[in-house]
Amino acid sequence: MHLADERCTPCISGEGRLESQEIHALVGAADGWALESLDSMIEKHWDFKDFAAALAFVNRVGALAEAENHHPDITFGWGYAMVTLTTHAAEGLTRNDFIMAAKIDAVAAA
Amino acid sequence: MHLADERCTPCISGEGRLESQEIHALVGAADGWALESLDSMIEKHWDFKDFAAALAFVNRVGALAEAENHHPDITFGWGYAMVTLTTHAAEGLTRNDFIMAAKIDAVAAA
Repeated sequence: MHLADERCTPCISGEGRLESQEIHALVGAADGWALESLDSMIEKHWDFKDFAAALAFVNRVGALAEAENHHPDITFGWGYAMVTLTTHAAEGLTRNDFIMAAKIDAVAAA
Repeated sequence: MHLADERCTPCISGEGRLESQEIHALVGAADGWALESLDSMIEKHWDFKDFAAALAFVNRVGALAEAENHHPDITFGWGYAMVTLTTHAAEGLTRNDFIMAAKIDAVAAA
């Protein structure tokens, strides 16, 4: 099963944090996602033709976030958007972050 | 006339950049906006009850940005949003930024 076909699972505080080796394997397989700040976040940048296209993407990501109950941080403006994923309850990266990353890639390509 | 009742005017490259004294007077009169990085940007943070409320605010700001053709940079996530304003064509702050700030305050309070 592809990550994009999985569902985010409810977080249990302090559980599910991935080890560095798993993180590097998942980041290596993810398209364009970069690992940030002490292996605790992943982020990806997209370019768009204008502000409206960026905002439309942001709303697609927002709908996903609500559906999966897993919420990224998003920065956007004219012609770009950047999404950051981490799992606050685990104080690091969990499988949910990589599931969301794959789902976001799917709506970015849509 | 209040700033919120003015319309952003089309930018002419290199024109309209405010002097430091004007900037400080406008920031001083603005509610909660902070001046950043060498007087070239203003930013403001809002707290919201959840992700959906933050995204709804972001969409209100997005509609304003399109109506005024003046586009902020926005960062948001679960329970917060931050808006940054500058005028790239002027390489600094213009009256348009403070007009947008006042209009954003109005939709934040709506």
